Amino acid sequence: MTALTDSIHRTGAAAVLDRCDELATHTSAPDGLIERVYLSPEHAAVNALAAGWMRDAGMATWQDAAGNQCGRLEGATPGLPALLLGSHLDTVPSAGRYDGILGVLTAIAVVDRIQASGRSLPFALEVVAFGDEEGTRFGTALLGSRALAGTWLDAWWELTDEAGTTLHDAFLAFGLDPAAITAAARTSNDFVGYLETHIEQGPLLEERDLPLGIVSSIAGARRFQITVTGKAGHSGTPWTHRRDALAGASEAIVAIERLARGADLIATVGHLEVFPDAVNVIAGRAEFSLDLRGRFDADRDSVWQQIEALLDEICAARGLHVAVHQTHSAPAARCSDRLRGVIAAGIEAAGIRAGAAAEAEPLELLSMAGHDAMAVAHLTEIGMLFVRCAGGVSHHPDESVTEADVARALDAFEAAVLALADAHPAQAQQPRDPA
Amino acid sequence: MTALTDSIHRTGAAAVLDRCDELATHTSAPDGLIERVYLSPEHAAVNALAAGWMRDAGMATWQDAAGNQCGRLEGATPGLPALLLGSHLDTVPSAGRYDGILGVLTAIAVVDRIQASGRSLPFALEVVAFGDEEGTRFGTALLGSRALAGTWLDAWWELTDEAGTTLHDAFLAFGLDPAAITAAARTSNDFVGYLETHIEQGPLLEERDLPLGIVSSIAGARRFQITVTGKAGHSGTPWTHRRDALAGASEAIVAIERLARGADLIATVGHLEVFPDAVNVIAGRAEFSLDLRGRFDADRDSVWQQIEALLDEICAARGLHVAVHQTHSAPAARCSDRLRGVIAAGIEAAGIRAGAAAEAEPLELLSMAGHDAMAVAHLTEIGMLFVRCAGGVSHHPDESVTEADVARALDAFEAAVLALADAHPAQAQQPRDPA
Repeated sequence: MTALTDSIHRTGAAAVLDRCDELATHTSAPDGLIERVYLSPEHAAVNALAAGWMRDAGMATWQDAAGNQCGRLEGATPGLPALLLGSHLDTVPSAGRYDGILGVLTAIAVVDRIQASGRSLPFALEVVAFGDEEGTRFGTALLGSRALAGTWLDAWWELTDEAGTTLHDAFLAFGLDPAAITAAARTSNDFVGYLETHIEQGPLLEERDLPLGIVSSIAGARRFQITVTGKAGHSGTPWTHRRDALAGASEAIVAIERLARGADLIATVGHLEVFPDAVNVIAGRAEFSLDLRGRFDADRDSVWQQIEALLDEICAARGLHVAVHQTHSAPAARCSDRLRGVIAAGIEAAGIRAGAAAEAEPLELLSMAGHDAMAVAHLTEIGMLFVRCAGGVSHHPDESVTEADVARALDAFEAAVLALADAHPAQAQQPRDPA
Repeated sequence: MTALTDSIHRTGAAAVLDRCDELATHTSAPDGLIERVYLSPEHAAVNALAAGWMRDAGMATWQDAAGNQCGRLEGATPGLPALLLGSHLDTVPSAGRYDGILGVLTAIAVVDRIQASGRSLPFALEVVAFGDEEGTRFGTALLGSRALAGTWLDAWWELTDEAGTTLHDAFLAFGLDPAAITAAARTSNDFVGYLETHIEQGPLLEERDLPLGIVSSIAGARRFQITVTGKAGHSGTPWTHRRDALAGASEAIVAIERLARGADLIATVGHLEVFPDAVNVIAGRAEFSLDLRGRFDADRDSVWQQIEALLDEICAARGLHVAVHQTHSAPAARCSDRLRGVIAAGIEAAGIRAGAAAEAEPLELLSMAGHDAMAVAHLTEIGMLFVRCAGGVSHHPDESVTEADVARALDAFEAAVLALADAHPAQAQQPRDPA
């Protein structure tokens, strides 16, 4: 096989899916399950693989001061601002193999296609594979993209993982210098925009029988750690003398679901732990997480206030104490009109329409899932392309995409980049009529 | 200090409490918390201590084939059937220092007093310190007393602890031979009865301002492991597509509480675990325990049927699957009239009455907590003395008794043994008028 054939092969959907499979083998979980967290040996391994693929696509590569794997292909002249393409390579526990990963590999493949075409663009292309989007290890999400966006908080150094390792020490163990973290921060002048491909993580594209969609905006999540404290005691203790933290937490979880559902918000309690956690001991303490997200930040914040009042009420009635700690808060992030337009152009160039009519436009979707794009939005305008996933399932081993949809995504994402290039910079810099 | 003074000192309440404190130092938990499980190094350590105290009290000692620590003081002639006194030395996680332990140390102290008095009894005295009552390590309770009662089940060998160690391998690691387990089994002919002292684990004695009470019967618990399975997924998944196992489990826990409470039964969900247990992932699976107990077995079993139907209903409505596995079932165990009588005589001999009136009788209590006596009831008749505990609290570091109450318990328990001796065997064997 010649180098050229190999390159052509690599840029196709089958090759992208092969790479997803290869990355899935880098996991800390047994039995074929996928778990790959920030600053782990598996993180280092997938960075090395991604760097190799970036170089194969003609990019200069580096790992930044936060452990994000980066690559750059110069534009028509060296040193131009870049269009940033990317997503993340970390996962939740028992993850699928496409969430984040497909976006990184699509970005690399598109750069590979463009450099192979010999076409020179009016901006550089950069690809970033973020090291932490999910927040699995340290409980705080978007660490990789927030380092790049320059919104890193020094308070995070004291975050600890399950083993008690601080983020600071994890940096050192990974070979990174915490004192150099600001070197990962880029500026607005570095970029002309950010484009991300991601699986939908929802069922709407599948229901509309569409392979691709445009993200209109990304709902902002607020996350809380809620601790309900009662009193441990023997399981034979009469009702009058019980202060059961798990019974209180359960009532709260049911009530949170009812409240959020009624207000058209999404609420998830995904983590719950009880202490001392024994069959014959009343739970003295229950700790659980709450992830609350919705279309509008104001609605979300108002429902959170209702939830807080309800927690107080339930716990007071049961003689329990409740403590609430917010661990994450992100405002909704709007995708720019310009980048929504180039993604729409890309989808149309790939021959996909939302309906039979010639005037049918690509489907716009609100993303209920958070994305690195939310962090990057602090620096530059953002746009996102969604790819249909089977059953809307993500964060699960059943996560699935078809090769045909990935092929369409590659075509559309490449076309979107080229559409931006066509519109840039001559048209964008043309003076407008001041009237 | 002479040996005699030492012996007198040791039989007092202060010495018993000192020994409780000493045993509390043998723990596998950090930060002063107490956790001591079956077949652990801490189990071996407390057996050795108890054996020493038994020998100091004049007993011959042995560790039986199940790891129970035993001691025997012969009666008027060697080889007589024995009155068995005892309780357990294992604990729940984050335990108190009296549950079970006080009963073992009271038994040793009473044997010490009787042998020191030089009085010869018409039966031998045996003390047993059971190695497993709580079931903390292997999830199945009363392993020690069921070995002695001869009701051991071979299926238990495959039970595993959290680390995956089987009960079989734990026996080997402790230096016990699983093939010899039947050697731990005693027969009805070995015993004239079983008496156990235990903290009340409930608030009734305290509420009646009484230090001691007689157990009428022990409620039988049924325990279940309940697994609710849904589908893990991203926390942004819309309500229409969620199959949230923790939301279903929470609804079930609230409903179980309501049902049990309404039927005057006690239900406890003390253990709950969710998978994958991440802030931003819908729970795909929730496993929880249910401990159900009540005054009458029939009521308990009927409420369990209602709970099962409710679990099915809740899970069906949410698209969840539910699986139920019974891990433990014990019938209520009735204390014999004869042994309730001797305990009443012991309490009266200690000068305690339930009221000011001369005819006031000691308080009889139903035990909602399970006890080794339930297992021993397969072999011989049982009787139990309850000691007031502060706030009715047990299975918690705050478990507390007063020295004055322990002194009364020692007096009453000794008097009960002597009352049984007075009634045995001459009176008991006198032929009754056949008319």
